[in-house]
Amino acid sequence: MILKNLLEIGQSASISKVFTEEEVENFASLSEDRNPVHLDEEFAKSSIFGQRIVHGMLVASLFSGLLGEKLPGEGTIYLGQTLNFTAPVSIGEEVTATVEIINIRKDKPIITLRTLCIDSNGNTVINGEAVVKIS
Amino acid sequence: MILKNLLEIGQSASISKVFTEEEVENFASLSEDRNPVHLDEEFAKSSIFGQRIVHGMLVASLFSGLLGEKLPGEGTIYLGQTLNFTAPVSIGEEVTATVEIINIRKDKPIITLRTLCIDSNGNTVINGEAVVKIS
Repeated sequence: MILKNLLEIGQSASISKVFTEEEVENFASLSEDRNPVHLDEEFAKSSIFGQRIVHGMLVASLFSGLLGEKLPGEGTIYLGQTLNFTAPVSIGEEVTATVEIINIRKDKPIITLRTLCIDSNGNTVINGEAVVKIS
Repeated sequence: MILKNLLEIGQSASISKVFTEEEVENFASLSEDRNPVHLDEEFAKSSIFGQRIVHGMLVASLFSGLLGEKLPGEGTIYLGQTLNFTAPVSIGEEVTATVEIINIRKDKPIITLRTLCIDSNGNTVINGEAVVKIS
Protein backbone atom coordinates (compact mmCIF):
# COMPACT_ATOMS: atom_id res chain seq x y z
CA MET A 1 0.00 0.00 0.00
CA ILE A 2 1.22 3.47 -0.91
CA LEU A 3 0.49 6.39 1.39
CA LYS A 4 -0.56 9.21 -0.90
CA ASN A 5 0.33 11.89 1.63
CA LEU A 6 3.97 10.79 1.59
CA LEU A 7 4.17 11.59 -2.12
CA GLU A 8 5.23 15.07 -3.21
CA ILE A 9 5.73 16.88 -6.47
CA GLY A 10 9.43 16.79 -7.37
CA GLN A 11 10.18 13.37 -5.88
CA SER A 12 12.13 11.23 -8.34
CA ALA A 13 13.71 7.81 -8.80
CA SER A 14 16.30 6.66 -11.33
CA ILE A 15 17.92 3.54 -12.70
CA SER A 16 20.92 3.10 -15.00
CA LYS A 17 21.38 0.16 -17.32
CA VAL A 18 23.52 -1.06 -20.21
CA PHE A 19 21.62 -3.28 -22.63
CA THR A 20 23.68 -6.12 -24.09
CA GLU A 21 23.39 -7.89 -27.45
CA GLU A 22 21.95 -10.91 -25.67
CA GLU A 23 19.27 -8.84 -23.96
CA VAL A 24 18.28 -7.22 -27.25
CA GLU A 25 18.04 -10.67 -28.84
CA ASN A 26 15.93 -11.97 -25.94
CA PHE A 27 13.62 -8.99 -26.19
CA ALA A 28 13.25 -9.55 -29.94
CA SER A 29 11.86 -13.02 -29.16
CA LEU A 30 9.59 -11.89 -26.34
CA SER A 31 8.10 -9.00 -28.29
CA GLU A 32 8.18 -10.68 -31.72
CA ASP A 33 10.04 -7.56 -32.86
CA ARG A 34 12.83 -8.86 -35.08
CA ASN A 35 13.42 -5.62 -36.95
CA PRO A 36 16.93 -6.13 -38.43
CA VAL A 37 18.10 -2.74 -37.18
CA HIS A 38 18.22 -4.41 -33.76
CA LEU A 39 19.58 -7.81 -34.78
CA ASP A 40 21.52 -7.67 -38.05
CA GLU A 41 24.91 -5.96 -37.92
CA GLU A 42 25.21 -5.56 -41.69
CA PHE A 43 21.70 -4.19 -42.11
CA ALA A 44 22.14 -1.82 -39.19
CA LYS A 45 25.43 -0.48 -40.60
CA SER A 46 23.67 0.60 -43.76
CA SER A 47 20.73 2.13 -41.85
CA ILE A 48 20.59 5.75 -40.73
CA PHE A 49 21.70 4.60 -37.28
CA GLY A 50 24.99 3.11 -38.52
CA GLN A 51 24.92 0.37 -35.91
CA ARG A 52 22.58 -2.00 -34.06
CA ILE A 53 20.28 -0.18 -31.66
CA VAL A 54 18.26 -1.23 -28.64
CA HIS A 55 14.47 -1.48 -29.10
CA GLY A 56 12.91 1.78 -27.89
CA MET A 57 10.20 -0.14 -26.05
CA LEU A 58 12.83 -2.12 -24.14
CA VAL A 59 14.48 1.10 -22.98
CA ALA A 60 11.06 2.54 -22.11
CA SER A 61 10.35 -0.52 -19.97
CA LEU A 62 12.76 0.89 -17.41
CA PHE A 63 10.04 3.41 -16.55
CA SER A 64 7.64 0.58 -15.75
CA GLY A 65 10.10 -0.92 -13.30
CA LEU A 66 10.74 2.41 -11.59
CA LEU A 67 7.02 3.09 -11.21
CA GLY A 68 6.14 -0.35 -9.90
CA GLU A 69 9.12 -0.82 -7.64
CA LYS A 70 10.40 2.58 -6.53
CA LEU A 71 8.07 5.53 -7.12
CA PRO A 72 5.21 5.32 -6.28
CA GLY A 73 6.24 1.63 -5.70
CA GLU A 74 4.46 -1.63 -4.95
CA GLY A 75 0.74 -1.44 -5.66
CA THR A 76 1.08 1.06 -8.50
CA ILE A 77 -1.38 0.53 -11.34
CA TYR A 78 -0.13 1.70 -14.72
CA LEU A 79 -2.82 3.71 -16.51
CA GLY A 80 -0.95 5.35 -19.33
CA GLN A 81 2.36 6.33 -20.85
CA THR A 82 3.44 8.69 -23.60
CA LEU A 83 6.80 8.14 -25.27
CA ASN A 84 8.81 10.29 -27.64
CA PHE A 85 11.81 8.45 -29.00
CA THR A 86 14.22 11.33 -29.62
CA ALA A 87 17.53 9.53 -30.18
CA PRO A 88 18.69 5.95 -30.69
CA VAL A 89 20.35 3.87 -27.94
CA SER A 90 23.33 1.76 -29.01
CA ILE A 91 23.92 -1.71 -27.67
CA GLY A 92 26.43 -1.47 -24.81
CA GLU A 93 25.68 2.19 -24.06
CA GLU A 94 24.61 3.18 -20.55
CA VAL A 95 21.26 4.90 -20.22
CA THR A 96 19.64 6.42 -17.15
CA ALA A 97 15.85 6.48 -16.79
CA THR A 98 14.19 8.83 -14.31
CA VAL A 99 10.60 9.25 -13.18
CA GLU A 100 9.59 12.44 -11.37
CA ILE A 101 6.24 13.31 -9.83
CA ILE A 102 4.75 16.35 -11.58
CA ASN A 103 1.12 16.14 -10.48
CA ILE A 104 -0.90 14.56 -7.68
CA ARG A 105 -4.65 14.75 -8.13
CA LYS A 106 -6.52 15.98 -5.11
CA ASP A 107 -9.78 14.21 -5.93
CA LYS A 108 -8.40 10.78 -6.86
CA PRO A 109 -5.30 8.68 -6.12
CA ILE A 110 -3.85 9.44 -9.54
CA ILE A 111 -0.31 10.66 -10.07
CA THR A 112 1.42 12.00 -13.19
CA LEU A 113 5.17 11.57 -13.56
CA ARG A 114 7.59 12.96 -16.09
CA THR A 115 9.55 10.07 -17.60
CA LEU A 116 12.96 10.86 -19.04
CA CYS A 117 15.77 8.66 -20.29
CA ILE A 118 19.21 10.06 -21.12
CA ASP A 119 22.34 8.49 -22.56
CA SER A 120 25.85 8.71 -21.11
CA ASN A 121 26.41 12.07 -22.85
CA GLY A 122 23.31 13.55 -21.24
CA ASN A 123 21.31 13.50 -24.48
CA THR A 124 17.62 12.75 -24.12
CA VAL A 125 16.74 9.43 -25.77
CA ILE A 126 13.12 9.14 -24.54
CA ASN A 127 10.82 11.61 -22.89
CA GLY A 128 7.17 11.48 -22.00
CA GLU A 129 4.77 11.15 -19.12
CA ALA A 130 3.28 8.31 -17.11
CA VAL A 131 -0.08 8.29 -15.35
CA VAL A 132 -0.54 5.83 -12.51
CA LYS A 133 -3.10 5.01 -9.87
CA ILE A 134 -1.99 4.10 -6.39
CA SER A 135 -3.79 1.58 -4.25
CA MET B 1 12.86 1.12 -48.27
CA ILE B 2 9.15 1.86 -47.91
CA LEU B 3 7.26 3.39 -50.81
CA LYS B 4 5.07 6.05 -49.24
CA ASN B 5 2.61 6.00 -52.14
CA LEU B 6 1.80 2.35 -51.46
CA LEU B 7 0.55 3.26 -47.98
CA GLU B 8 -3.10 4.17 -47.48
CA ILE B 9 -5.29 5.22 -44.59
CA GLY B 10 -7.12 2.16 -43.27
CA GLN B 11 -4.36 -0.38 -43.96
CA SER B 12 -3.74 -2.56 -40.92
CA ALA B 13 -1.60 -5.41 -39.61
CA SER B 14 -2.15 -7.69 -36.62
CA ILE B 15 -0.38 -10.26 -34.49
CA SER B 16 -1.73 -12.61 -31.81
CA LYS B 17 0.32 -13.91 -28.93
CA VAL B 18 -0.01 -15.76 -25.63
CA PHE B 19 2.55 -14.65 -23.06
CA THR B 20 3.85 -17.46 -20.85
CA GLU B 21 5.13 -17.36 -17.26
CA GLU B 22 8.65 -17.86 -18.56
CA GLU B 23 8.36 -14.92 -20.95
CA VAL B 24 7.06 -12.66 -18.19
CA GLU B 25 9.98 -13.73 -15.99
CA ASN B 26 12.46 -13.07 -18.80
CA PHE B 27 10.98 -9.65 -19.41
CA ALA B 28 11.21 -8.85 -15.68
CA SER B 29 14.97 -9.40 -15.92
CA LEU B 30 15.43 -7.47 -19.16
CA SER B 31 13.44 -4.46 -18.00
CA GLU B 32 14.46 -4.63 -14.32
CA ASP B 33 10.71 -4.58 -13.61
CA ARG B 34 10.22 -7.17 -10.87
CA ASN B 35 6.90 -5.81 -9.61
CA PRO B 36 5.47 -8.78 -7.66
CA VAL B 37 2.11 -8.49 -9.42
CA HIS B 38 3.91 -10.05 -12.40
CA LEU B 39 6.06 -12.60 -10.58
CA ASP B 40 4.62 -13.55 -7.21
CA GLU B 41 1.51 -15.74 -7.27
CA GLU B 42 0.56 -15.07 -3.65
CA PHE B 43 1.04 -11.32 -3.90
CA ALA B 44 -0.89 -11.19 -7.18
CA LYS B 45 -3.80 -13.14 -5.69
CA SER B 46 -4.26 -10.51 -3.01
CA SER B 47 -3.94 -7.64 -5.52
CA ILE B 48 -6.88 -6.06 -7.34
CA PHE B 49 -6.02 -8.24 -10.34
CA GLY B 50 -6.46 -11.52 -8.45
CA GLN B 51 -3.75 -13.22 -10.48
CA ARG B 52 -0.34 -12.66 -12.08
CA ILE B 53 -0.52 -10.30 -15.03
CA VAL B 54 1.71 -9.62 -18.00
CA HIS B 55 3.71 -6.36 -17.95
CA GLY B 56 1.79 -3.75 -19.94
CA MET B 57 4.98 -2.65 -21.67
CA LEU B 58 5.64 -6.21 -22.84
CA VAL B 59 2.19 -6.39 -24.41
CA ALA B 60 2.71 -2.93 -25.93
CA SER B 61 5.95 -4.13 -27.49
CA LEU B 62 3.86 -6.09 -29.98
CA PHE B 63 3.11 -2.73 -31.63
CA SER B 64 6.80 -2.10 -32.13
CA GLY B 65 7.20 -5.42 -33.95
CA LEU B 66 4.20 -4.78 -36.18
CA LEU B 67 5.45 -1.30 -37.11
CA GLY B 68 9.02 -2.38 -37.83
CA GLU B 69 8.24 -5.63 -39.59
CA LYS B 70 4.80 -5.39 -41.18
CA LEU B 71 3.32 -1.91 -41.46
CA PRO B 72 5.00 0.31 -42.56
CA GLY B 73 7.74 -2.39 -42.29
CA GLU B 74 11.51 -2.49 -42.59
CA GLY B 75 13.09 0.95 -42.37
CA THR B 76 10.42 2.36 -40.06
CA ILE B 77 11.74 4.82 -37.47
CA TYR B 78 9.73 4.94 -34.26
CA LEU B 79 9.10 8.54 -33.24
CA GLY B 80 6.43 8.22 -30.59
CA GLN B 81 3.80 6.10 -28.91
CA THR B 82 0.91 6.80 -26.58
CA LEU B 83 -0.44 3.96 -24.46
CA ASN B 84 -3.57 3.67 -22.33
CA PHE B 85 -3.59 0.48 -20.29
CA THR B 86 -7.31 -0.15 -19.99
CA ALA B 87 -7.44 -3.74 -18.68
CA PRO B 88 -4.95 -6.29 -17.36
CA VAL B 89 -3.64 -9.22 -19.45
CA SER B 90 -3.38 -12.55 -17.65
CA ILE B 91 -0.50 -14.94 -18.21
CA GLY B 92 -1.61 -17.58 -20.73
CA GLU B 93 -4.33 -15.37 -22.28
CA GLU B 94 -4.25 -14.69 -26.01
CA VAL B 95 -4.08 -11.05 -27.06
CA THR B 96 -4.24 -9.55 -30.53
CA ALA B 97 -2.42 -6.32 -31.33
CA THR B 98 -3.36 -4.28 -34.40
CA VAL B 99 -1.85 -1.20 -36.00
CA GLU B 100 -3.90 0.79 -38.50
CA ILE B 101 -2.85 3.80 -40.56
CA ILE B 102 -4.96 6.83 -39.64
CA ASN B 103 -2.88 9.66 -41.08
CA ILE B 104 -0.21 10.13 -43.75
CA ARG B 105 1.39 13.55 -43.78
CA LYS B 106 1.61 15.14 -47.18
CA ASP B 107 4.63 17.31 -46.40
CA LYS B 108 6.80 14.72 -44.66
CA PRO B 109 7.21 10.92 -44.62
CA ILE B 110 5.45 10.70 -41.26
CA ILE B 111 2.60 8.29 -40.56
CA THR B 112 0.25 8.02 -37.59
CA LEU B 113 -1.25 4.64 -36.72
CA ARG B 114 -3.93 3.69 -34.24
CA THR B 115 -2.56 0.96 -31.98
CA LEU B 116 -5.05 -1.35 -30.33
CA CYS B 117 -4.67 -4.55 -28.36
CA ILE B 118 -7.64 -6.72 -27.42
CA ASP B 119 -7.99 -9.88 -25.35
CA SER B 120 -9.71 -13.10 -26.40
CA ASN B 121 -13.10 -11.69 -25.30
CA GLY B 122 -12.68 -8.64 -27.51
CA ASN B 123 -12.04 -6.30 -24.59
CA THR B 124 -9.55 -3.53 -25.21
CA VAL B 125 -6.45 -3.96 -23.07
CA ILE B 126 -4.30 -1.21 -24.63
CA ASN B 127 -5.12 1.60 -26.98
CA GLY B 128 -3.14 4.54 -28.26
CA GLU B 129 -1.34 5.89 -31.28
CA ALA B 130 2.08 5.49 -32.83
CA VAL B 131 3.93 8.04 -34.93
CA VAL B 132 6.62 6.74 -37.27
CA LYS B 133 8.87 8.06 -39.99
CA ILE B 134 9.52 6.01 -43.07
CA SER B 135 12.84 5.99 -44.87
